[in-house]
Amino acid sequence: MGMLLLFPFFFFLATLLSTTESSNHHITHQIHLLRPQSGSRSTDIPGLSCQSWRLGVETNNIRGWKTVPDKCEGYVGHYMLGQQYRKDSEVVANEAILYAQSLKLAGDGKDIWVFDIDETSLSNLPYYAKHGFGVEPYNSTLFNEWVNKVTAPSLPESLRLYKKLLSLGVKVVFITGRPEDQRKVTTKNLINVGFHTWEKLIHKGSSYSGKTAVVYKSSERKKLEKRGYRIIGNIGDQWSDLLGTNTGNRTFKLPDPLYYIS
Amino acid sequence: MGMLLLFPFFFFLATLLSTTESSNHHITHQIHLLRPQSGSRSTDIPGLSCQSWRLGVETNNIRGWKTVPDKCEGYVGHYMLGQQYRKDSEVVANEAILYAQSLKLAGDGKDIWVFDIDETSLSNLPYYAKHGFGVEPYNSTLFNEWVNKVTAPSLPESLRLYKKLLSLGVKVVFITGRPEDQRKVTTKNLINVGFHTWEKLIHKGSSYSGKTAVVYKSSERKKLEKRGYRIIGNIGDQWSDLLGTNTGNRTFKLPDPLYYIS
Repeated sequence: MGMLLLFPFFFFLATLLSTTESSNHHITHQIHLLRPQSGSRSTDIPGLSCQSWRLGVETNNIRGWKTVPDKCEGYVGHYMLGQQYRKDSEVVANEAILYAQSLKLAGDGKDIWVFDIDETSLSNLPYYAKHGFGVEPYNSTLFNEWVNKVTAPSLPESLRLYKKLLSLGVKVVFITGRPEDQRKVTTKNLINVGFHTWEKLIHKGSSYSGKTAVVYKSSERKKLEKRGYRIIGNIGDQWSDLLGTNTGNRTFKLPDPLYYIS
Repeated sequence: MGMLLLFPFFFFLATLLSTTESSNHHITHQIHLLRPQSGSRSTDIPGLSCQSWRLGVETNNIRGWKTVPDKCEGYVGHYMLGQQYRKDSEVVANEAILYAQSLKLAGDGKDIWVFDIDETSLSNLPYYAKHGFGVEPYNSTLFNEWVNKVTAPSLPESLRLYKKLLSLGVKVVFITGRPEDQRKVTTKNLINVGFHTWEKLIHKGSSYSGKTAVVYKSSERKKLEKRGYRIIGNIGDQWSDLLGTNTGNRTFKLPDPLYYIS
């Protein structure tokens, strides 16, 4: 029921823009309305194709970037709020489901699938739509305020995968970069939007302070395998969710042109 | 000089279509002219977004595919012959050059960069433009005939990277899935288009018969490292060029929606 309550904002944004997709003027205008105050600008790369930039990001050719190039704000906004982000995510979920269905599972409760949370299970798109679609530098104060509102919608395609995995007898483990002090709001948000059960929800403990996501997530996956779990799948929006050690039998990269985490 | 002689066909195709980019009808018509006989058709996936399919391929979410989906022939053709393929490759080369320039090289002649050949150093686009842009199943007889013509153009952005690396004192090692009996034509073709020197040109020996590219290429990279080489970079159009062991300090994935090699 929570999902039904929280969905409208996401779909409000998405349908608002997808219905006016034929008119570039309209789209730009609407996105601007969603973001009345422009944040500080940073990157300007002359001659850059935003399409090529996004492909470079998604294939992990472009690494360590701080913000979306200024000129790509409109492009990324259209991508995220239009049909393509959803379609791209749908293909990922379809492939993951085909793969999961092809496996012969042991059925001993040790087969797990690792899910990242932000931009994988929960969507922060309503926040980023108000903050320049990644053009504004990351602001932890404002972002944490948003997290504490507990209003992040699900990524519908990931929720579909999650439900399918549960029905196949696979257990889900969330590994998130969110700190321990966001456990309560994160739990509530996950349950509200339909992720109602899990084997473990692993937050980034203070011992990993200053460590990269690759180090933290690899270490936590290693612990899981030491405890006898088999990571049959691993899904995330960042390459740092999927690289390192103990990455799982197969990884799935969801699109995310909004930010980069190493 | 050879490069100048061989370039025209590639650019003939590219400019032919990019100049008529505003008219879809024209593009489709021209591509059809290039491919008078339609090959056997195979994959049809209803509701599939070709853009999402291509992203799925480039991010290694979609694996083990045999042919480009039927409905995506036009899409892939436009992508390959229009501006976007070149622009996407340009971003990859730019990132690779930035990375290479950032390194402090030992200058002892042991810093190498691994290049794949097909769709990385040499382009088979003139062949694929006549064979359905990956929609037709792979035909080794016809493809080998094309290889033996020694008329493959370079990928201009990879050639640019190659020249930059040489100027930085990095040595280049080619590792190709082409068999030993194509060494002579491959050598000639590489030199003709501007790849005039290399530390090693490694062809797939008969001992790797039946082995995947990941196994073969990992094994050859391991041998290189055992001989004291440091693989500072590795570039290829297939994930099987970049995954496995001894992958190098950083990998770069060029676009290739034409075929999949495991």
